[in-house]
Amino acid sequence: MSKLLVIGCGGVAQVAITKCCQNSAVFTELCIASRTLSKCDALKSALEGTTQTKITTAQIDAMDVPALTALIKDYNPVAVLNVALPYQDLAIMDACLAAGVHYIDTANYEAEDTQDPTFKAAYDKRCAELGFTALFDYSWQWAYQEKFKEAGLTALLGSGFDPGVTSVFAAYAQKHYFDEIHTIDILDCNGGDHGYPFATNFNPEINLREVSAPGSYWENGKWVETHPMAIHRTYDFDQVGTKDMYLLHHEEIESLAKNIPNVKRIRFFMTFGQSYLTHMQCLENVGLLGTEAIDFEGQSIVPIQFLKALLPDPASLGPRTVGKTNIGCIFTGLKDGKERSIYIYNVCDHQECYREVGSQAISYTTGVPAMIGAMLVSDGRWQDAGVFTTEQFDPDPFMEGLNAWGLPWTVVENPTLVD
Amino acid sequence: MSKLLVIGCGGVAQVAITKCCQNSAVFTELCIASRTLSKCDALKSALEGTTQTKITTAQIDAMDVPALTALIKDYNPVAVLNVALPYQDLAIMDACLAAGVHYIDTANYEAEDTQDPTFKAAYDKRCAELGFTALFDYSWQWAYQEKFKEAGLTALLGSGFDPGVTSVFAAYAQKHYFDEIHTIDILDCNGGDHGYPFATNFNPEINLREVSAPGSYWENGKWVETHPMAIHRTYDFDQVGTKDMYLLHHEEIESLAKNIPNVKRIRFFMTFGQSYLTHMQCLENVGLLGTEAIDFEGQSIVPIQFLKALLPDPASLGPRTVGKTNIGCIFTGLKDGKERSIYIYNVCDHQECYREVGSQAISYTTGVPAMIGAMLVSDGRWQDAGVFTTEQFDPDPFMEGLNAWGLPWTVVENPTLVD
Repeated sequence: MSKLLVIGCGGVAQVAITKCCQNSAVFTELCIASRTLSKCDALKSALEGTTQTKITTAQIDAMDVPALTALIKDYNPVAVLNVALPYQDLAIMDACLAAGVHYIDTANYEAEDTQDPTFKAAYDKRCAELGFTALFDYSWQWAYQEKFKEAGLTALLGSGFDPGVTSVFAAYAQKHYFDEIHTIDILDCNGGDHGYPFATNFNPEINLREVSAPGSYWENGKWVETHPMAIHRTYDFDQVGTKDMYLLHHEEIESLAKNIPNVKRIRFFMTFGQSYLTHMQCLENVGLLGTEAIDFEGQSIVPIQFLKALLPDPASLGPRTVGKTNIGCIFTGLKDGKERSIYIYNVCDHQECYREVGSQAISYTTGVPAMIGAMLVSDGRWQDAGVFTTEQFDPDPFMEGLNAWGLPWTVVENPTLVD
Repeated sequence: MSKLLVIGCGGVAQVAITKCCQNSAVFTELCIASRTLSKCDALKSALEGTTQTKITTAQIDAMDVPALTALIKDYNPVAVLNVALPYQDLAIMDACLAAGVHYIDTANYEAEDTQDPTFKAAYDKRCAELGFTALFDYSWQWAYQEKFKEAGLTALLGSGFDPGVTSVFAAYAQKHYFDEIHTIDILDCNGGDHGYPFATNFNPEINLREVSAPGSYWENGKWVETHPMAIHRTYDFDQVGTKDMYLLHHEEIESLAKNIPNVKRIRFFMTFGQSYLTHMQCLENVGLLGTEAIDFEGQSIVPIQFLKALLPDPASLGPRTVGKTNIGCIFTGLKDGKERSIYIYNVCDHQECYREVGSQAISYTTGVPAMIGAMLVSDGRWQDAGVFTTEQFDPDPFMEGLNAWGLPWTVVENPTLVD
């Protein structure tokens, strides 16, 4: 029925593409484009014979807007699914506008070099305006609102799990469970165990930023900033068990605050094991997390990059990670004049994901919603002129998609978050 | 009355030399010799005017036996005090034999490169014979027994605190407090705080070896080897408080087992704070304590050496370290047919040491006994032909020396070591 151009061929991209190929009724044709053609060709080879989707590949530098525009025009898809690197978001949006196709991504824009003066100045200005440290934010992409509106095109931002599914959960709760949502607590629990004393699921520099940045949450119409890791809660996660969580800033808080009427408080919590935190603290104490080069035997070495070289390759964790993720939202509010609270969540098993798509749950829970977002934009159910986040469309078809494509969800009443 | 040649000008050497200069009645003339003449000259300048000892200096590579022999013959001291590096012990002993002077040191021999095939083979053979991992041992220097005997010269080994003072405590307990010593527990407690989350008092590679090597103790005539840090005790140290300690191998166990008759068990415990151990564990977990080079961006880098470059310079800890050391021995046994137990110990204050000699207690507690050992050998009270450890001479003049020269000791009855 429709053609999709997918940009990127990393872990999340491979899950999204594999899922598109399971959904050949919608995605009759698909082009995999990335900087490294051989990776695209290898994935194409692995999928051919398992799918009716007609797969092609292309080599592209996504930062080269004219070349990307030409590729899009040439392939002529309904939409572009961007599962490349976040710093390429704006270039790909520009190419979509130039070529006249819809746009879907999973992660918001950030400069490749966050110390780049233009990015840094804009980032600092925005943090000052907001009154807190917006580690991740949509501002750069929301600036494309008018351009997509005028072009009559849809840009669907952040169609991963969190952000993405968590915002769809909010829209679904609003539609079916509440007259008024008062509080939202987004819980991101990874109960996986890779068997190493210490390893990181992705670049340790990003892990570090998460735990060392101030936290922030939305309350009564304004942002409240906290010291890093200052707010701690525990929750007894279905199929995982009781875990420690810490409040962090997360980008969907900002869009949910705009789009969920009357909401009084929105927070985001992520689980961190004590051993992980102890290692991070020790490594920070001895200077191993430093991002500035030191002189060592006449060589210039950035400590965190040396640490990264010592740690297990994140890509090697997939086959050895066991356990489950449990990610969802606790909503409280009013329904028919009575107080209500529910937890909507998905449980995803690392080993099952690995067997199905060759990736653990971290990539799986992002790649599946990327495919669902691309499907809904492509088949017209989620089309509107402008730039949107996932809570702005009808949640029902997305929620059906989650059940159908590997991320089934559950609703329980009266969840208990423990101080 | 006598001339002393001191080899070395590091932290311990500076304390020993300063103490010799406070004791001008014995040390009328002193020569400071080390590889770096400017360090010797700087120390000479700092001490002149404060002492009646006549100080001279000399440049020497202690590994060059003919040159060192010539220097000794030329200066013509009564004895040589070796407070240089442990790998230089044998060369200095050879030179003392060639020049016909007495020898005193504080630390037992170890090859500069512990992976050197000759050293490694001998070390492995000895460990196999003993049935345990003798991280430090006197075997290389005990092999000089006949040479010193024939030459009619004294070699006094290990005249620091532990080994050194702790063995004198054993001889003193044997002479004055017991008919029979049954057990000896040597306790080494550093209650100092340098204010850093993590730093090491000396080369982190040596610290690491201590905590990662198997422990061992002497019991009923043989060695018992334990897993690293497997045996834990606590003790309430006078002026420091209750501390966690772990059983380690230490070289004086072997000499005490030979020289204290009827002793049934000898153990050595060192205090380690939980934070120190946690940091060491985390650093080991991520591979930062590795001693083999890894390839990093085309450069060959040894992880523990990179770590060392990140940590505070051990020499910088002196002025900022507060608190006290408490080092001593618990003896149990029989006196007049009744059971008895005592703790003989010294308490040393880091800041007081720093004010007096510009070094914290770690160097002070080694440097002062080095001077006392050199004094007793020089003035003839501890002279005998052969190679000796400190428990083999009359302890009384050494114990008087400790009280006189800054390391006063205390004896308490019925100490309680807690499991």
